[in-house]
Amino acid sequence: MTLGPFAARLDRAHEAMELAGVDALLLSVGADLPWLCGYVAMPLERLTVLVVPAAASGQQPTLVVPELEAPRVTRAPEVFSVRPWAEADDAIGIVASLVRQGTPRAPVLAIGDRTWATFVLRLQAALADADWRPASTVMAPLRAIKDATEIEALAEAAAAADRVAAALLAGEIPLVGRTEREVSTELTRRLLEEGHERVNFAIVGSGPNSASPHHEPAERAIRPGDAVVCDFGGSMGGYCSDITRTVFTGTPSPELARVYTVVAEAQAAGALAAQVGEPCSSVDRAAREVIDGAGFGQYFVHRTGHGIGLEEHEDPYMVAGNPTLLSAGHVFSVEPGIYIPGRYGVRIEDIVAVTADGPQPLNQADHALTVVEA
Amino acid sequence: MTLGPFAARLDRAHEAMELAGVDALLLSVGADLPWLCGYVAMPLERLTVLVVPAAASGQQPTLVVPELEAPRVTRAPEVFSVRPWAEADDAIGIVASLVRQGTPRAPVLAIGDRTWATFVLRLQAALADADWRPASTVMAPLRAIKDATEIEALAEAAAAADRVAAALLAGEIPLVGRTEREVSTELTRRLLEEGHERVNFAIVGSGPNSASPHHEPAERAIRPGDAVVCDFGGSMGGYCSDITRTVFTGTPSPELARVYTVVAEAQAAGALAAQVGEPCSSVDRAAREVIDGAGFGQYFVHRTGHGIGLEEHEDPYMVAGNPTLLSAGHVFSVEPGIYIPGRYGVRIEDIVAVTADGPQPLNQADHALTVVEA
Repeated sequence: MTLGPFAARLDRAHEAMELAGVDALLLSVGADLPWLCGYVAMPLERLTVLVVPAAASGQQPTLVVPELEAPRVTRAPEVFSVRPWAEADDAIGIVASLVRQGTPRAPVLAIGDRTWATFVLRLQAALADADWRPASTVMAPLRAIKDATEIEALAEAAAAADRVAAALLAGEIPLVGRTEREVSTELTRRLLEEGHERVNFAIVGSGPNSASPHHEPAERAIRPGDAVVCDFGGSMGGYCSDITRTVFTGTPSPELARVYTVVAEAQAAGALAAQVGEPCSSVDRAAREVIDGAGFGQYFVHRTGHGIGLEEHEDPYMVAGNPTLLSAGHVFSVEPGIYIPGRYGVRIEDIVAVTADGPQPLNQADHALTVVEA
Repeated sequence: MTLGPFAARLDRAHEAMELAGVDALLLSVGADLPWLCGYVAMPLERLTVLVVPAAASGQQPTLVVPELEAPRVTRAPEVFSVRPWAEADDAIGIVASLVRQGTPRAPVLAIGDRTWATFVLRLQAALADADWRPASTVMAPLRAIKDATEIEALAEAAAAADRVAAALLAGEIPLVGRTEREVSTELTRRLLEEGHERVNFAIVGSGPNSASPHHEPAERAIRPGDAVVCDFGGSMGGYCSDITRTVFTGTPSPELARVYTVVAEAQAAGALAAQVGEPCSSVDRAAREVIDGAGFGQYFVHRTGHGIGLEEHEDPYMVAGNPTLLSAGHVFSVEPGIYIPGRYGVRIEDIVAVTADGPQPLNQADHALTVVEA
C-alpha cells in the first residue's frame, strides 16, 4: 500500500504537538483532516472526528466516523484506524473515551478550527477537565508550507481558472444585457468544464455593485460602460483556485482607467514583495503604498491576500501586523482593490508562490485593461 | 420598508429565549441567521455574529460584520442594526462588549450550532462567566415548522430537482461508459439550469459503489447492468432540494429487482406515516418494518429521513427514538435504502410535507423500476 505523504505528515504533526504541549488533536470538518490523512469529513450533523493522541502515548490515531460514511474512508491502517458509529450510538462518548485512553488527566486538546459549536460544547461537557485550543496552533504552520506536489496541484487549478479568465477577457462570455447571476452561472459551468470538481464562489459585481468586494450576484443587468469585477474559484484535485479580473463593457472614463492602472501596479508591487525572509505584512504594505500614494488609500478596505491550499482562505494572511516570515512553499493571493461606494470597484487577483528564486505567479491571465464590449 | 416575516420571527425567537432562560443569542454561519434576519454569513475566517439580547433587555439585535461584507447587508433597521468592523479591529471584543451591554452577569448564551470552534473558544475566553449552549435549543423548533411561503419555496426547489430526475429516468442523461464524476457534473449543471443557485451534492454511485450511501463520485466508468444511485440537491431561492432515484443500466437480476421493490414499498410506507400527531420515530419505523419484514434489515444502515429547509439537513430527524410529534409544516426527506456491501445499493428519496390533510410529497418524479439503457 502506498501511503502518499500521510505518514510523514503525521510525524510532523506529532512533533508540532509536542512543541505546543498538546496531548491530542481532534480534527473534524475542514482541511486539517484531509491534509493529515486524506479523508474529508462531511459537514453534517453526524460527527466525524480523527483523534490523534501525542506520539508519547503510543496510541494510533482513530477516525470516529458515521457508519454510512465508513465506506468512503480509504483505509491507511499505518496512519489511523477506523471506528464507525451507528445511528443509535453516542458519538461524543466514543470520542471522549478515545481521548481518555490516549491522554493524561486535564489534557490539552486542540480541536479543528471549523468544528461545529454544537460538537465543541458537547465535547467540553464530556471532557470537563480539558484545556481547549484551536488546532490551527499546531496545524496551520505545517499546512502553510506547500510541498512540490501541492504546488503542482495549485498551479493546475490556477491554470484552469486562467482558461476561464482568458475567455472572459477575450469577450467569449457575453456580459451586456445579461444579469450578474447569469454570468456567474456561466463562470461556474466553465470552471467545472475546465476540470474543477467544485466551484466555491463566482462573484460578479457590475457597475455600482462592483464597489462591494464580496457582492452577491443578483438580477442587475450589465450595461454598457460598466466595470465588472469577476472573482471566481473552486477546487480541483482538492486544491483551490481563486482569480479576479475586472473588465469594462465600454471604454472607461479617464478616472476609472487611472484607478485600474493603480490597482494593476499595486498588484504587481505586492507580488514582487513576496520574497523569502520578508514578513507577510510587507506584501500588504507594498500593495497598499501604491494605492495610498495615488490617493485612494481609504478605498482599499481589505487586506492584500490570503493563503490558499486545501482551503480557499488559510494561513498565511497578507495583512498589516502579520510578522510571519515568508518561506519557500508559501502560496497566497495578491488581490488589492479600490472601491468607490455607489460608483465602481476594481480588483485584480493572482495566486503567487514563494520560491527560493523569488515570487512565482501561478496565474497567467492578462492584467492589461480590457474592454470586452464596445 | 417591507420587512417580510423577520419582525414576527424575532418576536417568536424572543419568546423562545425567555422560555429557555437564554440571555442572548449569538448567530453566525448556518441558517439561523438568514431565517431570523435574511442575511447569510460567509463561512470565513472573518467573524460575522448577530447578537440578539433577550427582549427584556430592551436592546436591539446587532449584526457584527466585516467591513467588506457590510455592503451585502440588506438593512432592516427595525430588526437589527449593523456594526461593521475593519481588518485591524478586534471582532471578538466587539461581540463580547455587545453581549455585556445586553445581558446580566454570568449570562446564558446560545451560540449558533455551526459557529466555528476557533470563534467559540475565543468568545468563551472573552466571556468567561457565561454558560454556553447551542442555539438550536431555541431556534430548531421554530425553524422546523415551515410557513406557507417556505413550503412553496421547497416545492419549487423540489420541482426543479424533479425535472432533472425525470431526464435521468427518461434516459436523457447518458450513463454507460461515462464516469460517475461525469454524470455528477451533468446533474450539477442541470440543477443550475433548472434554477438552483447552488448545488450542494450530486452523488453518483454505480455498481458496487452504489452500496456506499454517501459515495464520492469517482473515475469508475458505469457499465451495463449496474444499479446507479443518484442523490442530488441544492438550494433555490434559499431553500433546499434533495432527491434520490436509483436506475438500472440493464434489466436487474430478480434479487436486485426485489430489493428495488422492497425499497419503493418502504419509501411509500414511510411517507404515508407522516401524519400530524405521530412521533418522528414512527416514520422511521414504518419504513424499517417493510425492509425488516423482507429480511434486509441489517442492510438499511441509516435513519429514514431528515428535515429540510434553509439547510439540507435540519430538525426534525426521522430516526428511532425521536419522540417529536409531527405538526403541519414539518418538511423532511423519506429515503430508505438497502446496501449490500461490495455488490449494490438502492435508495429512493422524496421530500414530504406534513399537512392537516395528510402527507404531501413535494417530489413527483416516478418511483417505478426504470431500466435506462439496455
